[in-house]
Amino acid sequence: MAKYMVSFMPTNRSAMVEEGTTIAEAARQADVFIKNLCGGEGVCGQCRVQITSGKAEADEQARAFFSEEEIERGYVLACQTEVHDNLEVLIPPETRMEEAKIMTGEAAGLEAEGEAKPLVRKIFLEMPEPTLEDNISDIERVSRELRRKIGWHSYEISLSCLRRLSEKLRDSQFKVTASVAKRGGGYKILRIDPGDTTSSHYGLAVDVGTTTVVAQLVEMSTGRILGVSGTHNLQASFGEDVISRIIYACKKDGLGPVHEAVIKNINQLIDDLTSEKNISRDDIIAMVAAGNTTMSHLLLGLLPCSIRLEPYVPTADIYPQIYARKIGVQINPEGILETLPSVASYVGGDIVAGVLACGIPDHPEVRGLIDIGTNGEIAIGNNEWLVCCSASAGPAFEGGGTRCGMRATKGAIEKIEISNGKLTYKTIGNAKPRGLCGSGLIDCMYELVKNGIIAPDGKFNRDLKDERLAIVDEIPEYTIAFAEESESGEPIVITESDIDNLMKSKGAIFAAIKSLMDYIGLEFDQIERFYVAGGFGNFLNIEKSIAIGLLPDIPKEKIEFIGNSSLTGARLCLLSEEALEKSFNISRAMTNIELSNYQPFMDEFVAALFLPHTNRKLFPSVTY
Amino acid sequence: MAKYMVSFMPTNRSAMVEEGTTIAEAARQADVFIKNLCGGEGVCGQCRVQITSGKAEADEQARAFFSEEEIERGYVLACQTEVHDNLEVLIPPETRMEEAKIMTGEAAGLEAEGEAKPLVRKIFLEMPEPTLEDNISDIERVSRELRRKIGWHSYEISLSCLRRLSEKLRDSQFKVTASVAKRGGGYKILRIDPGDTTSSHYGLAVDVGTTTVVAQLVEMSTGRILGVSGTHNLQASFGEDVISRIIYACKKDGLGPVHEAVIKNINQLIDDLTSEKNISRDDIIAMVAAGNTTMSHLLLGLLPCSIRLEPYVPTADIYPQIYARKIGVQINPEGILETLPSVASYVGGDIVAGVLACGIPDHPEVRGLIDIGTNGEIAIGNNEWLVCCSASAGPAFEGGGTRCGMRATKGAIEKIEISNGKLTYKTIGNAKPRGLCGSGLIDCMYELVKNGIIAPDGKFNRDLKDERLAIVDEIPEYTIAFAEESESGEPIVITESDIDNLMKSKGAIFAAIKSLMDYIGLEFDQIERFYVAGGFGNFLNIEKSIAIGLLPDIPKEKIEFIGNSSLTGARLCLLSEEALEKSFNISRAMTNIELSNYQPFMDEFVAALFLPHTNRKLFPSVTY
Repeated sequence: MAKYMVSFMPTNRSAMVEEGTTIAEAARQADVFIKNLCGGEGVCGQCRVQITSGKAEADEQARAFFSEEEIERGYVLACQTEVHDNLEVLIPPETRMEEAKIMTGEAAGLEAEGEAKPLVRKIFLEMPEPTLEDNISDIERVSRELRRKIGWHSYEISLSCLRRLSEKLRDSQFKVTASVAKRGGGYKILRIDPGDTTSSHYGLAVDVGTTTVVAQLVEMSTGRILGVSGTHNLQASFGEDVISRIIYACKKDGLGPVHEAVIKNINQLIDDLTSEKNISRDDIIAMVAAGNTTMSHLLLGLLPCSIRLEPYVPTADIYPQIYARKIGVQINPEGILETLPSVASYVGGDIVAGVLACGIPDHPEVRGLIDIGTNGEIAIGNNEWLVCCSASAGPAFEGGGTRCGMRATKGAIEKIEISNGKLTYKTIGNAKPRGLCGSGLIDCMYELVKNGIIAPDGKFNRDLKDERLAIVDEIPEYTIAFAEESESGEPIVITESDIDNLMKSKGAIFAAIKSLMDYIGLEFDQIERFYVAGGFGNFLNIEKSIAIGLLPDIPKEKIEFIGNSSLTGARLCLLSEEALEKSFNISRAMTNIELSNYQPFMDEFVAALFLPHTNRKLFPSVTY
Repeated sequence: MAKYMVSFMPTNRSAMVEEGTTIAEAARQADVFIKNLCGGEGVCGQCRVQITSGKAEADEQARAFFSEEEIERGYVLACQTEVHDNLEVLIPPETRMEEAKIMTGEAAGLEAEGEAKPLVRKIFLEMPEPTLEDNISDIERVSRELRRKIGWHSYEISLSCLRRLSEKLRDSQFKVTASVAKRGGGYKILRIDPGDTTSSHYGLAVDVGTTTVVAQLVEMSTGRILGVSGTHNLQASFGEDVISRIIYACKKDGLGPVHEAVIKNINQLIDDLTSEKNISRDDIIAMVAAGNTTMSHLLLGLLPCSIRLEPYVPTADIYPQIYARKIGVQINPEGILETLPSVASYVGGDIVAGVLACGIPDHPEVRGLIDIGTNGEIAIGNNEWLVCCSASAGPAFEGGGTRCGMRATKGAIEKIEISNGKLTYKTIGNAKPRGLCGSGLIDCMYELVKNGIIAPDGKFNRDLKDERLAIVDEIPEYTIAFAEESESGEPIVITESDIDNLMKSKGAIFAAIKSLMDYIGLEFDQIERFYVAGGFGNFLNIEKSIAIGLLPDIPKEKIEFIGNSSLTGARLCLLSEEALEKSFNISRAMTNIELSNYQPFMDEFVAALFLPHTNRKLFPSVTY
């Protein structure tokens, strides 16, 4: 079979691949990492690349992701495009696996401290065999060699590992590989394996989200991401949001099923990733999970009941390092799980991971992070201080609480424009529309107010003559997609009470940001950089988000989408014990402002129930 | 029923007891601790006390333990004597539970550092309930309270304990008892129990000997010994000595049965002690075990194979802290086991415990410890240095390797005297003689050489006319008990080859002591104190031991029998985390001199194969 060379720019890495291989697979072989949220299904449109030399035909379906002009310029989806020629492929910045700045920042930080120190290190030890002059115990011989390799520490060992030590050393002529993990002030020897097994060394970074669970398989020695796989959180059958899951888990015998659901998720992802890469699950010896406080509790089987009730107390904020098998996660039996620490009941390990991934505590400039979901969590700080808060935004941005809302999956309307009285929209995967996801709803609000279809108070202009506007049971509703366009044959509409819910959601988030800024005495222009996280963030239109008063009115270039920063943070901790230590410091150092019963927040919330805001001075750039 | 007051001197403690109670039980009720090696069977003769006021009748059998003069003066066995009058009882020094000096020394040391810190501490925490202003996580609330009570440390918690935390705190209105154990640089929270359970807090100190397993049940808050129980090591069915047990354990599937045998022993002792004291085994939350290196390996299920073979390498010298249930020991499921550290393959945790119990590292004066068994282990040092060695003495002193040798149990001849040509002996429990135990053999050697029946080279004077001396198959043998006196109807004899074996045993031990002294450049008169440990030590006649050249010829008052110092050391570590830390320091600091292939030892051994020694200048006090 013919083979072709595929070169990737700007890194200038290349791979020789067989004809018919996808560009995405070629990239993997060349160690070039490109976004792949849907796992190569061709539905997320994230793996956009530009063919700059050589011929390649874009898949028909994929063409829908690009403008005519882009297609002219050679844009294709890497996962849907086969190689039938020598190619030169440019990876545009938005397609690189991680927002470049963060990745570089982290990588530089790690390099600066010399050798990377992943959470679990595999170290090949060639020891002298014992003699009468040197007859220290087996474990002391191993510890001595470890001290030579990684420094003077105490080395703990489990009884089960110790029980097999004597035979393993002698069967391998004292040439073994030790797997060691930092634990407290010292190290724990997890495994001793005969011979040199350092080349089979993998870890798993997992973002345990309320909606989705996403896992990355990482080669520990190089930091390479070998694969990523995501799935919907099976706990959804016990409730859509954290509150309903807490209620279920706190019923008699309720915790077990909710706990087991997410373990099943994770094991499925491990299955997918290991069979795809043809590696053994036994070679995965470390796992880092990040999630909100409730998800972390449910992952570990901790009762989350008091999280829900005033005064909102979690069982733990720093979680014990455990053997992953203890909760049924099927990696190596001695493999460990670190669950990233939380700050409070509603500021979890996902936010700590995000703060870490954005490098907020590494710089003197003030930076902010916002994660928009059912709750909006906000963290602001620099290398000297960190504050955070959480506001209940309601489910609107995640597709709940509105008549035709849905999650950001295939068929969701994610973009809307009304231009010259003509409404156009775009769905995920260019499928027939099934509903409106968060970014579509934001676009919708913006277009409605900009075009005078709704007023700044969110009420429809009932006098407007528009075939899309109707009044049903005295409530105005506006049709986005007509019945004949939609998958179900039902029209997709937005109602005045939907707008009302969205107003409360965006108002709560902005009020939280504003209250936190006021609490610390900062103005918006003092924020150097504002990161927006959440799966939702990738599709968000910044200008429109500012224009409806969801995000603060700061220069667009200061706002950065960072995608799943929870996953990025988890991976950083998997690859660096210093990063993990930093996550504990973030958890301890961050001051949580409890917004419930906090009067300034209440006042800000009321003021924010307007488009863009009752105080227009806060939004000078908004022109409608 | 009538009640009587029993007062114990010199401590002047007393108890009011019902008529018919034994003096031993009255002592326990009065918190007076007296020796009780046989557990109240009346066979060990250790619980000698003197009735100084009031009337009490000694048991017939017990009378055999005392001279006529002693009986006149009111001596009785505490365990065999019932109370039928108000009594004043004097506890002679030899009967106090521990050699007084050591106990006082240890106790003073602990008191000097303030509050005692047992290995596991139970601490009652009364915490404020959470409020919106103080809504830290449950585990952080517990840790904060612990920091207030026991200082700024990191507090680890197991997942299973964390899982029950939330409910336990709320069910008990945040009034709980935390059981915490030192672990590495911090503390581990083992249990959280509702309410105040600090009054039910027990620990177990265990001496895992090759021959016997002895356990003490200790009240952790006061240090009181509630009971002691001993049993023969069930591993005996796999071999009498450590070497044969190693061989068995290293056969296919051999380790399991040997490991399980000693666990069965320990569980039996726990059963005895807890049912005697009517406490729950769940209230025992800490255990410290001390044993020689092989016994420690077998206790933990570690392969002992390489201990036996040159270059004599154990799997571990410092053992991991584990949950006792991990090896099947039936105390509280969260109860921990510390196994005291070894120094080398033939200098184990029992010696480390002994060195600790004797306070050797606490003083500038040089002190020595010898533990005589199948191996003779010797440790010498002070607060600046510690050296040790081990010599294989053979089984003679433990009843093996001689025709009529036996362990120190009922019916063993433990004392022999030949005066004016007349031989008298005494058996343990005053039973019909069944054989000769170690102390009997030492007495025997001494009496034979002193009376010219054997020559200093250990050969019998074949010309002697003595009805007890006979030559059978050309080997002279000497009758200690005639057939009609013995239990079996067979005579109890000592043969010339028995003497030969004993000569090698005593020679090896003395040579080891001498080699160690020469190695460090010390003379015997520079030793301030010489402790002799081992069950055997309690019955040993010091003068006769010196006279045959087993112990060095130093003033008798410098030699002290300290009984089961392994058990004492284990208990000290149970009651004090500082003592445990000290045991690790002893293990690390002690220099082991490997005597195999050490030429000076070989030379000393040959020189010691004579009674008392080829160099009589070493034994100036010996007159025969």
